[in-house]
Amino acid sequence: MTATTWELQAAAHVAARDARIPAELQLPQSQAAQAQNRVVDVPLDSLLTPREQGITTSNCSTILKKVASQEWSAVEVAKAFSARAIAAHQLTNCLTEVFIEEARAAELDEILKRTGKTVGPLHGLPISLKDQLDIKGQPMTMGYVGWIGRVSAENAVLVDILKEQGAILFVRTNVPQALMLAETINNVFGTTLNPYNRLLTCGGSSGGEGALLAMRGSPLGVGSDLGGSIRVPAAFQGLYGLRPSYHRIPYAGATNSMLGQEVIPSVLGPMSSTLDGLKIFFKAVVDARPWSRDAQALRLPWQEEAYQLAEHGRGKRLCFGMMLDDGLVKPEPPLRRALLETKAALEAQGHKVIDYQPLKTAEGLALVQAIFNSDGGCDVRAQLALSGEPQIGWMLKKNAEPLNTYDYWRLAHTRELYVQEQLRAWEATAQLTGTGRPIDAILAPPSSCLPPAHGTPQYIYYTSFASLCDYTSSVIPTGTFDATLDVQEPAHDFRCEADRLAWENYSPQLFEGVPIGVQIIGRKNEEEAVLRRVRFSLLRLIDRLLI
Amino acid sequence: MTATTWELQAAAHVAARDARIPAELQLPQSQAAQAQNRVVDVPLDSLLTPREQGITTSNCSTILKKVASQEWSAVEVAKAFSARAIAAHQLTNCLTEVFIEEARAAELDEILKRTGKTVGPLHGLPISLKDQLDIKGQPMTMGYVGWIGRVSAENAVLVDILKEQGAILFVRTNVPQALMLAETINNVFGTTLNPYNRLLTCGGSSGGEGALLAMRGSPLGVGSDLGGSIRVPAAFQGLYGLRPSYHRIPYAGATNSMLGQEVIPSVLGPMSSTLDGLKIFFKAVVDARPWSRDAQALRLPWQEEAYQLAEHGRGKRLCFGMMLDDGLVKPEPPLRRALLETKAALEAQGHKVIDYQPLKTAEGLALVQAIFNSDGGCDVRAQLALSGEPQIGWMLKKNAEPLNTYDYWRLAHTRELYVQEQLRAWEATAQLTGTGRPIDAILAPPSSCLPPAHGTPQYIYYTSFASLCDYTSSVIPTGTFDATLDVQEPAHDFRCEADRLAWENYSPQLFEGVPIGVQIIGRKNEEEAVLRRVRFSLLRLIDRLLI
Repeated sequence: MTATTWELQAAAHVAARDARIPAELQLPQSQAAQAQNRVVDVPLDSLLTPREQGITTSNCSTILKKVASQEWSAVEVAKAFSARAIAAHQLTNCLTEVFIEEARAAELDEILKRTGKTVGPLHGLPISLKDQLDIKGQPMTMGYVGWIGRVSAENAVLVDILKEQGAILFVRTNVPQALMLAETINNVFGTTLNPYNRLLTCGGSSGGEGALLAMRGSPLGVGSDLGGSIRVPAAFQGLYGLRPSYHRIPYAGATNSMLGQEVIPSVLGPMSSTLDGLKIFFKAVVDARPWSRDAQALRLPWQEEAYQLAEHGRGKRLCFGMMLDDGLVKPEPPLRRALLETKAALEAQGHKVIDYQPLKTAEGLALVQAIFNSDGGCDVRAQLALSGEPQIGWMLKKNAEPLNTYDYWRLAHTRELYVQEQLRAWEATAQLTGTGRPIDAILAPPSSCLPPAHGTPQYIYYTSFASLCDYTSSVIPTGTFDATLDVQEPAHDFRCEADRLAWENYSPQLFEGVPIGVQIIGRKNEEEAVLRRVRFSLLRLIDRLLI
Repeated sequence: MTATTWELQAAAHVAARDARIPAELQLPQSQAAQAQNRVVDVPLDSLLTPREQGITTSNCSTILKKVASQEWSAVEVAKAFSARAIAAHQLTNCLTEVFIEEARAAELDEILKRTGKTVGPLHGLPISLKDQLDIKGQPMTMGYVGWIGRVSAENAVLVDILKEQGAILFVRTNVPQALMLAETINNVFGTTLNPYNRLLTCGGSSGGEGALLAMRGSPLGVGSDLGGSIRVPAAFQGLYGLRPSYHRIPYAGATNSMLGQEVIPSVLGPMSSTLDGLKIFFKAVVDARPWSRDAQALRLPWQEEAYQLAEHGRGKRLCFGMMLDDGLVKPEPPLRRALLETKAALEAQGHKVIDYQPLKTAEGLALVQAIFNSDGGCDVRAQLALSGEPQIGWMLKKNAEPLNTYDYWRLAHTRELYVQEQLRAWEATAQLTGTGRPIDAILAPPSSCLPPAHGTPQYIYYTSFASLCDYTSSVIPTGTFDATLDVQEPAHDFRCEADRLAWENYSPQLFEGVPIGVQIIGRKNEEEAVLRRVRFSLLRLIDRLLI
């Protein structure tokens, strides 16, 4: 079979990237090519010294502290993560670009030595970036063959901020085509694999981040989330992830699919293998006053009182609303167990968990799908046409007509009324909580399923519900699949085709050691409270909680 | 000539409204019908006692204080303003509905007497509402004949908040058709006249508020502003007006034209004949936590530090950027004088005023027009078709096709890039100010013109510039037209047709006693700072400043 032009272009682009990876940082071919499915804890002794293994398994706070105290140098931290990131890449295909800023790390060390001061709250912390965040002078394709050759004219605002705050940017990570799948595959870089079982998807669209972070190839990553793109890969890889509400983290200068779709804006946010990463990232970015650089960003400084849960009884006797089922697609048994265990843990700490009745799930799902498809796929088709590469996947309709703007406005207004109704339902729970307040947060599954096999259509409304309503939402890991506990349940009355498929697709034989987690949903602009609540109320639940 | 069906419907609706106006509150026919053009200071001795005249010429703080101290009763305040509002209406045709809540005023008096406490920060303050703010059980047409018979199903969120905070709602005010003109005329209620000269427009779209407030028929009004609809009538009637940034004041439950147009959202905000009204309104609304009732509203409490100008050197040695001309349409002489006098007054107080170079004015104007017209006028035509009434005015294209959503998204993205460029230009002024900060605010004319004769197309970009960029913007009066100082200038090189028309239309013979003012433009989400800066830096400029 002859390779087509776009295939040759893609292959050349990937080869050029690979050529930039230092040979000494690569895993031995034999180890990289080994056939085992679980690679998340593969031994890396051939590549990393014990000290480097210690560095790369530390949480963000420890890294920052030890670099600041000059116990570790920024250079050695950067080198250790770079080596581990490249190993992760060889095992999961998670990277799109490697650009280790060793000179910057050396400069940070020099400044610290000379002045005794760190340059900012992220001094020396390596941060990985989803393949949307432009860096001046660097190639970026966002997974489109037709974008090969594109070189970023300037830094995204967030890139500038992270660098100024002391971060070491070092890799970019893989995405699905058009960023519009809950798995990670495109025609330039291929498929990213889940390191817990390479037969499974890493999720998407921030799936490269998911695989890299799970491999400890980065301590902190930046993902983006339109309808679940931070939370799904976080859940599929046992990570912490935060979906902030619209316009809190600066998006200016980053690229995206469907630019100008402002009814449900995509947002940038942090993902990390350790909880502390979320707050460290969020506070460092907000403290840099993003509104002075991004015209869409809100002038909303870090709210310390909100972080202290001032509006939630200071964290004493919280009341959560648990959504065990959204009324449309029943989550798989391990995800229901994760919720029930979370409930028990919260109750043991004196908190309360009541049922949260989902409202108009089918209508909300239809709204999300209509909004995402309202250009009839024109944007995606235009990008594909640049190279002739084929469309991948199941999320966007292939040959739809765009709506006219009058109908689009009516759709946007329907969303306004929908989220208004959701707000009222949330407020109405004040009658049920016994705290005098509405529920303090919603507990929900982060997905209806554990990571499925590659190419399996997924139901995304457990996350896109929060996107539609602009709720601040976080995902946390709670444990792993348990073959004894998580047995398939008898068929129920299926509410829709997706419900039936979700039940049929349950694949316990693939899930040994696969992480499970829960989603904690707070309200619009409640990032501080969500960050705190996660830490506060689940302190005893999560063994590996390190801050 | 036979009246058409829609004309009969409109006439019947207006007659029914008039029938609800108590006869004893009406001006004598002879006085109402008198032919003079200037009615703003017409004697109202036949209608109002001296005490009532004192009440209705007091500022908002005084009214609140005297009601709270029981020197005045809420009932007598409500009665005085009602009488004056109806007189104003007879002279300018400013009202669409009258519903004096005397029972509520009596209840407020009773609560205060019994408990010694006011119900909230607006206790007993009459507030007028633009004809967009639904009140449960009341008719509201927003000026459309086809909406006659429409009865509001519930209160707008802002109506609930104002009432809970103690306000007495008592009238609604006239609007232009579709809210899309900078003058006030529709097929239901006709044209609202400018009380400074009834041959001139009161501006729009919150023009009924403008005329009513100038007549002191209300101490405080709620307008809405899409591209200047609060600021233009405020300027045309010598009022204070605040255009908050998007989603700070709750819009939920209010109706609008072009619902779902979210690229440049319309915002609600206060208008008042006294400066204190703006802060009183804004703080009372924000303190009521609008985000718990309006899903679009930002969780952004009152920022006292911002009000203290913490980010603007605490108000010492401010530096303003003055936009004397936007490079496209030269403002009329009195508006340029208003700016130059403001500059001199600021400099006399130790502040600095530098020139602000407008950036890409023509591109911005084209963007605003394209966005407002992107449904091809479908929404407006659909409302007109309900009754068969004709379209009025010059703002919207009559028979355009709607954009498709892909093109609309690209238009929205073009705006994102445009406002990003404006932000950078603002930030870049830090090199010029000598304060170490960028300019603290822009001073600009509130319009290119003083109120023109009815039916004259206006250039709106002096206000819609701030709407496009989501800048917080305020209008303040600085004086009145002066025939000696404000003489026509020689023709300049006209930059466009609107520039030529603006020069040709200058009509000093109509402007005796007509107010002039300036626009003070702050940044997105800077409502507190704008409110303070207005008060702070112009304290000596404005003689009638009462707080």
